[in-house]
Amino acid sequence: MGWMDVLFGRPLATEEEKAERIGPIRGVPIFGLDALSSAAYGPEAALTLLIPLGMAGVAYIVPISLSIIVLLGIVYFSYRQTIEAYPMGGGSYTVASENLGVWPGLLAAASLMVDYILTAAVGISAGVGALISAVPSLEKHTLLLCLAILVIVTLVNLRGVSEAGGVFMVPTYLFIFCLLGLIVLGAVKALLAGGHPVPVVAPPHLVGATATLSLWLLLRAFASGCTALTGVEAVSNGVMAFREPAPVTARFTLTLVIAILVAMLLGVAFLSKAYGIAATAPGEQGYQSVLSQLLAAVTGTGVFYWLSIGSILAVLALSANTAFADFPRLARAIAQHGFLPHGLAMRGRRLVYTQGIYALAFATGALLILFGGVTDNLIPLYAVGAFGAFTLSQAGMVMHWRRVGGPGSKKSMFINGLGAIATGITLLVVLVAKFTEGAWITVILIPSLILMMRMVRRHYNYVALATYDATRLNTSDLTPPLVVVAIDRWSRITHRAMCFALTISPDVTAVHVDDGPGSDALVTQWREVVEEPARQAGLKPPPLAVVTSPYRFVIRPVLEFVLEMEKAHPQRLIAVLVPELVERRWYYNLLHNHRSTVLKALLLFQGDQRITVINIPWYLSGDPTASRRAGRL
Amino acid sequence: MGWMDVLFGRPLATEEEKAERIGPIRGVPIFGLDALSSAAYGPEAALTLLIPLGMAGVAYIVPISLSIIVLLGIVYFSYRQTIEAYPMGGGSYTVASENLGVWPGLLAAASLMVDYILTAAVGISAGVGALISAVPSLEKHTLLLCLAILVIVTLVNLRGVSEAGGVFMVPTYLFIFCLLGLIVLGAVKALLAGGHPVPVVAPPHLVGATATLSLWLLLRAFASGCTALTGVEAVSNGVMAFREPAPVTARFTLTLVIAILVAMLLGVAFLSKAYGIAATAPGEQGYQSVLSQLLAAVTGTGVFYWLSIGSILAVLALSANTAFADFPRLARAIAQHGFLPHGLAMRGRRLVYTQGIYALAFATGALLILFGGVTDNLIPLYAVGAFGAFTLSQAGMVMHWRRVGGPGSKKSMFINGLGAIATGITLLVVLVAKFTEGAWITVILIPSLILMMRMVRRHYNYVALATYDATRLNTSDLTPPLVVVAIDRWSRITHRAMCFALTISPDVTAVHVDDGPGSDALVTQWREVVEEPARQAGLKPPPLAVVTSPYRFVIRPVLEFVLEMEKAHPQRLIAVLVPELVERRWYYNLLHNHRSTVLKALLLFQGDQRITVINIPWYLSGDPTASRRAGRL
Repeated sequence: MGWMDVLFGRPLATEEEKAERIGPIRGVPIFGLDALSSAAYGPEAALTLLIPLGMAGVAYIVPISLSIIVLLGIVYFSYRQTIEAYPMGGGSYTVASENLGVWPGLLAAASLMVDYILTAAVGISAGVGALISAVPSLEKHTLLLCLAILVIVTLVNLRGVSEAGGVFMVPTYLFIFCLLGLIVLGAVKALLAGGHPVPVVAPPHLVGATATLSLWLLLRAFASGCTALTGVEAVSNGVMAFREPAPVTARFTLTLVIAILVAMLLGVAFLSKAYGIAATAPGEQGYQSVLSQLLAAVTGTGVFYWLSIGSILAVLALSANTAFADFPRLARAIAQHGFLPHGLAMRGRRLVYTQGIYALAFATGALLILFGGVTDNLIPLYAVGAFGAFTLSQAGMVMHWRRVGGPGSKKSMFINGLGAIATGITLLVVLVAKFTEGAWITVILIPSLILMMRMVRRHYNYVALATYDATRLNTSDLTPPLVVVAIDRWSRITHRAMCFALTISPDVTAVHVDDGPGSDALVTQWREVVEEPARQAGLKPPPLAVVTSPYRFVIRPVLEFVLEMEKAHPQRLIAVLVPELVERRWYYNLLHNHRSTVLKALLLFQGDQRITVINIPWYLSGDPTASRRAGRL
Repeated sequence: MGWMDVLFGRPLATEEEKAERIGPIRGVPIFGLDALSSAAYGPEAALTLLIPLGMAGVAYIVPISLSIIVLLGIVYFSYRQTIEAYPMGGGSYTVASENLGVWPGLLAAASLMVDYILTAAVGISAGVGALISAVPSLEKHTLLLCLAILVIVTLVNLRGVSEAGGVFMVPTYLFIFCLLGLIVLGAVKALLAGGHPVPVVAPPHLVGATATLSLWLLLRAFASGCTALTGVEAVSNGVMAFREPAPVTARFTLTLVIAILVAMLLGVAFLSKAYGIAATAPGEQGYQSVLSQLLAAVTGTGVFYWLSIGSILAVLALSANTAFADFPRLARAIAQHGFLPHGLAMRGRRLVYTQGIYALAFATGALLILFGGVTDNLIPLYAVGAFGAFTLSQAGMVMHWRRVGGPGSKKSMFINGLGAIATGITLLVVLVAKFTEGAWITVILIPSLILMMRMVRRHYNYVALATYDATRLNTSDLTPPLVVVAIDRWSRITHRAMCFALTISPDVTAVHVDDGPGSDALVTQWREVVEEPARQAGLKPPPLAVVTSPYRFVIRPVLEFVLEMEKAHPQRLIAVLVPELVERRWYYNLLHNHRSTVLKALLLFQGDQRITVINIPWYLSGDPTASRRAGRL
């Protein structure tokens, strides 16, 4: 078992794929963790915007949350329909490109890619940020902690889907248990107290109202709360990963995720109002998260409080995993259409799309390093991609039903049309409300990605056309190539190369770069050890061409010799034989000059179709006599 | 003119070498800067050990300096003889290995290599240290400054010897002018005042004596003062760099360097006594260097003071340049004997031993990074290498004269014998006095280097013996190789590879890794487009072997196919043709898998003498029709 097996697990055969498919129990942590974790910051984001209204503002969290839940419901029904219509998976990208055309498809693809990268980066850094507020002494290691988590998440995902679900099950279900427990306990207490429960730990005192209610304020609060919807599309992208019948299992998993999320959003909104809990200003003295206040108010700061806080930290950090489960699948779908490098569509040792995982890990790592592991500034912009994809997906579904027709298609069109309009408006609100806060970065990034994808596709098309061959094997000219052998001295290495050269062609020329005194001796030796035996064997004697090098360059004169020979024989192929000593241990290579490697590279880049480089390796292995004699210097 | 020309200067032809040779005016800065700069710390090092004796101790600097000057005189006469006897250069290494044998030669070589690396590191960090004591705000950038200076010195040296001398002339001659000016001015003032001059700026008040005089104390002060001798051997190593007649020019340059150094040592000792200047404790409050005190006492803190301090800083930092001028020449001499990689003996574009410069820059950089640019701790140990080399060199010269014989050889033997004994005793004193301070590092490092050099030589011997070939060209079996062509699909790329294969051998087999649906189509197509035309042309139709890959690996099955074919045909050569798409722009390579590169590497490392890899490049260039059609997706 090599180190790769320990780190990544043994290779999996293609036949083992079915066994790797997952059910709803594993599906919720893998594809739902991102959506569920957003319950930890969505309501808080909305409440933060209500701060200027003072205690009166808290009441508005209930209608805002209800609106978000209605939107969530619309999105849910829309994605149920998508899973059914597209059982092979692919989500917004597939739906948009199949129903709306190439450009909207690429727009959806770019939006989703940006969103996944941001999800991974924001998830990891938010988790580490929460950990650091609990243990302030870790602050100086922020970036290191972020990158360590990134490495762990990457390794876990490289091991494969099923085991990734295993690792993430405990924190996800602990988080669900804690939050639903909090809500049930809080609701019971509130009902028993007739709607006005007494908090165990009182929330911080509120400053009075500094602003009056306006529709714009409510809209902005709604837009911020909509970050709770990010991650909902994940299940529909990953249908293929589910146990058969895949669409049924996927739909059931989606239902579970949405039901839990709705319960959480509703519960948090209701309890915030009942306990009179408002947001505190983030980044200022005395800041405490809404969930932390709520937990303290309902249960006090005992074991349950710390258990819940711990699960929130874990789930936030691991929500990055949803991106890791889904980004490679999205990238694969795009790559299969030729818009991203083909390597992203190849499965690796463990049946996962290895290169997609590397690409996401690389982009996320770059983002984390760029922002020093503090990606608070990225949070405002990361719903843009999600709502862009929602809108395109649902608009695409409308076209889908119009094309498909049949009974019920009118109703389906209405559901998806409603969804498209609702998410489209939300996207506009999010864009306008957050443009200066950072949404403009997305507005630049997405078109750049689209442009890049078009260029990739264009190049693949070009290569396919340029290499397309409808002709039959051309046997008209099978003249052997002119062979050039680069020679430094007469040795077993060059001897072997000369023998090989003579097996493939009668036209062999040796070329030697004049390096002073040794060259004359070589010319004399050549006549005796090469030309004469060749003549005796009835072969054309291979001449030795000695080229001079006033600048002591060794490679350039050989290259020039080959290029000139090519010019002199416009009809012939040229094969350049490069004899090369191969050391069995890498460090011995430090002792040799690497002219042959450089020569090969130069011939490749300065040469053309008619020049071929042939490597003649000579292995230094087990000549015990030579080894023994070398001991005596 | 490319960037390499701008950075390193245009390439120099071998014939231009004479013009690059230097006279004494350039020779003093290039080969003498290290020796001269030691006047800035040698006397100070001796005086520092005399601090416990109080003002009474200052008087002992005169006899100590005189002893050092006597030692310097012995070393000078010894090296004059060496230059005459060895006009090709090579210094201690050459002398020791030719006269004392391989092991003493390697001991001298290792000692000198360690010494040069330390000279470069200590010179740069001492210079930066002095700069930082003048401008304390730069302290946090210590390492960065050290590395920046290292890069500049490296670049200057890569440009070639002559220009390097040009860059270093100004600070060296300014340093000589300032120090000799100080001495003359101080001496005149002292004589006019009848031996008791009044300082312009009084030196710091001295603490009383805390120890009594002992021979051991004087010996240690002498040992520390001996750091003034480091760098003296440089001229004899570089004789070849001097203008013809090289030995005469070199000897004259050595005389100049030693004369200036003696004048400086004598002047500093005499003036310190006359002005009553003692050393202050380094690293403690109120520290001021002896030269700074002396300058202030003789001339006050005016323009001349700052000019002198500036030139001391520059010369200290640039003394590293002596190491850069000499280490590559030493490494070349060792490499020519096969004890270091041959690359160190090759001259680069600008007639310098490029790889030696890189090796020294790398070792120095590593040392600077390891010690954070603060190499004060290395100063105590860096005379060990120099005195080891002195002793071996002079012992070697004794053997030389014994062998040569003739008139005057007795006298020469006496001079070198005296030198060997004097420097040998000094080496012992330095080792004992500084062992715990760091000399033990050298005692470990030098034998390790010797061991490494023996291993390099042993391996070269082994390669030479293993590849030695006294036989004539073997023409007994010129059967063409079995050719294997790796095929993914039928395209212009694979078409070209098949054509090439058929020109070099009639036995061609194509191998294809089963990748699902496309493979069956390829098998059908193969019969039609390859086998049939081949048959019609009267050739043996090349079969297509399809190999399966349950783990989706593509490279391993091809490798295994080749190895099995090799086993099945023990008498045949195998040529593996790897068709490869070559993109003209590097970034397009990101779009392609690099299986051919991996296959080539694996075949090289898992293959043997009978397997040859042939690269068939296919260039994507200028097919305007395809390019135009690719524009329309």
